[in-house]
Amino acid sequence: MKIIDSQIKQTLQELIDTKNFVPQISVDCTIFGFHNNILKVLLLKYPELDCWSLPGGFVFNDEDLREAAARVLYERTHLKDLFLKQFHTFGRIDRTENNIHRILLRNKGIEVPNDHWIFNRFITVAYCSLIDFSITHTFPDSFNETCEWFEVSNLPEMAFDHDRIIETGLEYLRMNINTEVAASNLLPEKFTMKDLQSFYETILGQQFRRNNFQRKILSLHILDRLEKLYDGSANKAPYLYKFKNNIHHSTNRYPISNDNGIHNL
Amino acid sequence: MKIIDSQIKQTLQELIDTKNFVPQISVDCTIFGFHNNILKVLLLKYPELDCWSLPGGFVFNDEDLREAAARVLYERTHLKDLFLKQFHTFGRIDRTENNIHRILLRNKGIEVPNDHWIFNRFITVAYCSLIDFSITHTFPDSFNETCEWFEVSNLPEMAFDHDRIIETGLEYLRMNINTEVAASNLLPEKFTMKDLQSFYETILGQQFRRNNFQRKILSLHILDRLEKLYDGSANKAPYLYKFKNNIHHSTNRYPISNDNGIHNL
Repeated sequence: MKIIDSQIKQTLQELIDTKNFVPQISVDCTIFGFHNNILKVLLLKYPELDCWSLPGGFVFNDEDLREAAARVLYERTHLKDLFLKQFHTFGRIDRTENNIHRILLRNKGIEVPNDHWIFNRFITVAYCSLIDFSITHTFPDSFNETCEWFEVSNLPEMAFDHDRIIETGLEYLRMNINTEVAASNLLPEKFTMKDLQSFYETILGQQFRRNNFQRKILSLHILDRLEKLYDGSANKAPYLYKFKNNIHHSTNRYPISNDNGIHNL
Repeated sequence: MKIIDSQIKQTLQELIDTKNFVPQISVDCTIFGFHNNILKVLLLKYPELDCWSLPGGFVFNDEDLREAAARVLYERTHLKDLFLKQFHTFGRIDRTENNIHRILLRNKGIEVPNDHWIFNRFITVAYCSLIDFSITHTFPDSFNETCEWFEVSNLPEMAFDHDRIIETGLEYLRMNINTEVAASNLLPEKFTMKDLQSFYETILGQQFRRNNFQRKILSLHILDRLEKLYDGSANKAPYLYKFKNNIHHSTNRYPISNDNGIHNL
């Protein structure tokens, strides 16, 4: 505990001394985790405070904004090339007006002048990701003591406006579920309609009648039907499906679109 | 022309002398204009350069991010409380790496040191709006000479990454057409199915068969059917429709959703 504490102090000191960040900009990642029909989000706990935050960080001046978000995601999960989508930038004047940074630094005995950049107003660009929390290791910040998955419906006390960021991220995921689920690679390449329905139900927080779900998802033309899944049981073998390759560039991706193409007018 | 030129110079000088902006952050507005089945976007021309840009500006330290975007929109259109949606933040390192600001300042004879903030890397937060260009007056920046509507399919030479911003804004509008069209107030309160179809076709850049369009839009449950529109002609009177009041908070707003509510499972 003593070693960890001195590590946290050193990392905090290094952060405070860094001069090549883009000022007043941060990135925050809502890393959603899915497994067995449960949807969670990854949070970090500030040391000695009963307060949690999203994994986040600052943007180096020689780094693309998106690279900064990918770096934060990598630092927490050690996973690269993950599905990662920017969804909103939060810029209310008072969003970082609280004493969390100040208390954190004081608790660690780090002296920081009042006009230090860490106390400035920050505008944060939020990204979301969707991974399987059961096969993912997570790693706390060097200056946060724990990293933990929380069910989205049961969050702890959050720092800053991070509860609003999570809510907005979840809304984004739901609005874009068709493309985002395919992009997340969380389903195997071939899956049954039942697997897909469970996935959608968990993310949307809604239950569907089996026939309704099947009719609707097929009407979107985002799936290809494959062979049947024979498992030797007495039940009727279900069909397997896969996402069409061009789902991101399909002309059918808009909420209203012309299935048949313009030539069929 | 002489007066205008000295005005531009004064405004530029005032901008350069401003010290209370959030550093390295800007806002840009893609103001889409719709009228008679044409979709346009409002652009500004830099003086003495064959180069156009989106209306944009900087964020004051005592101003919400969204307020800054609303201010820019107001300055160009003198319209308040417009539909205005943030859609993406652009943060590639090299996005503002060009000499436009430098040439502009040199042309006006304004001396600016090389380490001035105006030459820094900027991250820009992009907003979009949708208005009727036929009833809207537009006003150039005090340091741009003209303000002009361009068809989205026929844009001039654009500064920085503004062509990419417009493309992303148009994609956002198309993906969110159901909620955004209702929010824009561009249709009268009561409209015919034909009016609505023209609107959708122009924004999506697609034509629909009348029956297909009607079936799809009704299946979204975002419209209420009203009385028929009797205009005294011999044609069959069409029904009038209006958007449901709760379209933004409807449980039917997701691409897949449960029309009948969970109680009908």
